[in-house]
Amino acid sequence: MAAAPVTVYGPPLSAAVSRVLACLLEKDVPFQLVPFNIIKGEHKKPDYLKIQPFGQVPAFQDESITLFESRAIARYVCDKYANQGTKGLFGTNPLEKASIDQWVEAEGQSFNPPISVLLFQLAFAPRMKIKQDENLIQENETKLAKVLDVYDKTLGESKYLAGDDFTLADLSHLPSTHYLLNSTDRGELFMSRKNVERWWGEISGRESWKKVVEMQKSPPPRRA
Amino acid sequence: MAAAPVTVYGPPLSAAVSRVLACLLEKDVPFQLVPFNIIKGEHKKPDYLKIQPFGQVPAFQDESITLFESRAIARYVCDKYANQGTKGLFGTNPLEKASIDQWVEAEGQSFNPPISVLLFQLAFAPRMKIKQDENLIQENETKLAKVLDVYDKTLGESKYLAGDDFTLADLSHLPSTHYLLNSTDRGELFMSRKNVERWWGEISGRESWKKVVEMQKSPPPRRA
Repeated sequence: MAAAPVTVYGPPLSAAVSRVLACLLEKDVPFQLVPFNIIKGEHKKPDYLKIQPFGQVPAFQDESITLFESRAIARYVCDKYANQGTKGLFGTNPLEKASIDQWVEAEGQSFNPPISVLLFQLAFAPRMKIKQDENLIQENETKLAKVLDVYDKTLGESKYLAGDDFTLADLSHLPSTHYLLNSTDRGELFMSRKNVERWWGEISGRESWKKVVEMQKSPPPRRA
Repeated sequence: MAAAPVTVYGPPLSAAVSRVLACLLEKDVPFQLVPFNIIKGEHKKPDYLKIQPFGQVPAFQDESITLFESRAIARYVCDKYANQGTKGLFGTNPLEKASIDQWVEAEGQSFNPPISVLLFQLAFAPRMKIKQDENLIQENETKLAKVLDVYDKTLGESKYLAGDDFTLADLSHLPSTHYLLNSTDRGELFMSRKNVERWWGEISGRESWKKVVEMQKSPPPRRA
């Protein structure tokens, strides 16, 4: 059925979906996007739950394999398509790979939790007419600031998080940072740290990410 | 200096440290443990911050590489020592590896956040004389219950999370589940789901995990 062998399910506005899209673009992997309608509950339908048992986005299909969890999908894409696109995106040997992976995990475990709370509280809660929790905002701003202090120090010693090349470690930070800078008034958290600011300029200027941002702006296609 | 090539820094009572220890034991990798004193702030000393910039545990050293983040360390150990110990712990081909990795990520992203809050609120807060937050407890119990519903369904279809073999996906759940079952009164969350209950019996009975639990019981060695 599919002209492209790789299928991504989920709207490009989702941070996790856009992480996978940026990775596929960096690796020059053709894909089709099935940007189904979360508001209509398409992610809770039985056929979808067979691929993504938690009913979240994205889900991913490549020939016979289906996968969920954006960071696991990204690792798979980098491994399977190692020799195309940005070749060193997940390193070129096991030591480089492990050095990158520790920062992918830092993003998932230390960076993502506080920034996700801030995005929900500052960008989504007002739109959904949910009362903002000031204590929670302050607590998570403090947490994120501490993480960014570590990043600023690291990025003072190397150009990117895992060394002098752009890797999956950096890419993994694009979606939520983009939202924080463009949909909240807390951009100073990043821009007041000079190495983080330089880093953001470099990684957000990647052609792959610019294409994802364009995809986010396009109106979703109508589906039955 | 080290007789064993692999060094793990951090107390075995830490969930993240014990995840790495269980992995090393499954893979038959000899290691030395430097169980330094977190209460004395040894994890904030400059030499340690060079290895683990966030000042967390564990940190890990193997010949020339130093790493942080327990799940990244575990993946590295499985890759480097693929041909020893439990050989399929991280799969034996890229497709198996990706299928396991999505569940390692599910543990890190969906299972760990609510269970960590419950452990803090139910087990540590009382000891630290911090007032428990009943709303937070209830909210995270509901979140964990939903995750365990998905696990129960999955574990009704296969023996383990990623298929019919014990893998890193299962191992990654051992530390925090062990704490919840042994240090709180919410064990019913697991034991009321029959496939989860069976699974817990199998994975907690692994020799590797029994050894980790023994290490957790030993008094920490005195260090200057």
